[in-house]
Amino acid sequence: MAGGLEELSDIEAIVRLKHAYFRLLDTKRFEELGDLLTEDATSAFESGKLSHEGRQAIVAFLGQALGRPDIVTVHHGHHPEIDVTSAGTATGTWYLEDRVIVHDQNFELHGTALYRDEYRKENGRWRISHTGYERIFEEQLRRGNEVVKFTTRFAPDPKEPGD
Amino acid sequence: MAGGLEELSDIEAIVRLKHAYFRLLDTKRFEELGDLLTEDATSAFESGKLSHEGRQAIVAFLGQALGRPDIVTVHHGHHPEIDVTSAGTATGTWYLEDRVIVHDQNFELHGTALYRDEYRKENGRWRISHTGYERIFEEQLRRGNEVVKFTTRFAPDPKEPGD
Amino acid sequence: MAGGLEELSDIEAIVRLKHAYFRLLDTKRFEELGDLLTEDATSAFESGKLSHEGRQAIVAFLGQALGRPDIVTVHHGHHPEIDVTSAGTATGTWYLEDRVIVHDQNFELHGTALYRDEYRKENGRWRISHTGYERIFEEQLRRGNEVVKFTTRFAPDPKEPGD
Repeated sequence: MAGGLEELSDIEAIVRLKHAYFRLLDTKRFEELGDLLTEDATSAFESGKLSHEGRQAIVAFLGQALGRPDIVTVHHGHHPEIDVTSAGTATGTWYLEDRVIVHDQNFELHGTALYRDEYRKENGRWRISHTGYERIFEEQLRRGNEVVKFTTRFAPDPKEPGD
Repeated sequence: MAGGLEELSDIEAIVRLKHAYFRLLDTKRFEELGDLLTEDATSAFESGKLSHEGRQAIVAFLGQALGRPDIVTVHHGHHPEIDVTSAGTATGTWYLEDRVIVHDQNFELHGTALYRDEYRKENGRWRISHTGYERIFEEQLRRGNEVVKFTTRFAPDPKEPGD
Repeated sequence: MAGGLEELSDIEAIVRLKHAYFRLLDTKRFEELGDLLTEDATSAFESGKLSHEGRQAIVAFLGQALGRPDIVTVHHGHHPEIDVTSAGTATGTWYLEDRVIVHDQNFELHGTALYRDEYRKENGRWRISHTGYERIFEEQLRRGNEVVKFTTRFAPDPKEPGD
């Protein structure tokens, strides 16, 4: 039955899995994020320009690209459309809005993209077996704002003008 | 029973319907978007200032307003509150954040709004029978950023400074 | 059973409760927002720097901090991760993105944070019994854009340049 209890329960578990992925990504907890991936997970970020094979390769890439404490990232995944394709497999579309802010360089990357993910159930637990996205748009900016205050949990001292 | 299986299944189907609406809107696939509307659907965008009757009129308006390849749109619908009001009807509130970016003119419209939608089940499939929103706020800006790079899937050549 | 009907129904009710909270917060309907809190609710906003005890104290604080009609707020709660911990209690994590815009001062606060909420079921209805968040990052800006138009539902006359 479409929309049966098992399907609804699987969708809730998969949505929540991806929610944890974004939380761990933006708090730079990359090792824990790795536990949300299958060991053989693959990635195809930026329309496949940034592709990786295996949990370890994905975790290493993310840590290298986004781990620096002077970089703030915002990854928000909206509008999940999840299809449970068998008892242990599923696919999902998400609509990403992301920002990468490098305050010291007055730099911001901002854009949107559509994720196409695959999920697999292992020992009763859903994990991401493939993740990738294609951009709708991307802009890279030198920001024209005067920043009065900027604080992050990664660099706890507030920066005042003139710092 | 409130929160019974059928109600939860209907809510999941309606939420997903609206998620597809936003995905097709921002990828400019207006004809496919039309298939998410009932044939007699009505709209009342911008507090009713932009109202239309019938699927065809809504699709034509959206294509005309947002179809140009030099316009990037971002429509994110947050915080659904869905009420199934009978076996085949439902209403929904959503909290929209939208951006319309016209890079060539250094222009951005940005705002938030509350949607009040109506949904109808036809032959087992939910469609949008009415959609409309009232603004919380709207701002129209000439952007003060220096844009280092700007790319979209609609105009694939990246624009570098000086273009 | 994990993911049973009752659990899914509770999660839907709790997610919707928080959705209404954000809608009432940003439309400045603070008294109605209070009805979403238990009478003994506590808050710990801004990593506990802004803490309150009791529904009345929380409602009074929010109205005082955000009630002025010249302030526009945007609070979007993404990525709910809800745990039903007993028949009548639950906890939840949310990923907030918020903006506070004071147009007359060309000021914007923008940031992200992680909510840790607690919920309690009273007479069959879920309410928020504790809410609080810790920042991921926060920036306070004098905006460098030229604002062509700015309208809100709180101050209905559009502001044109030169006003």
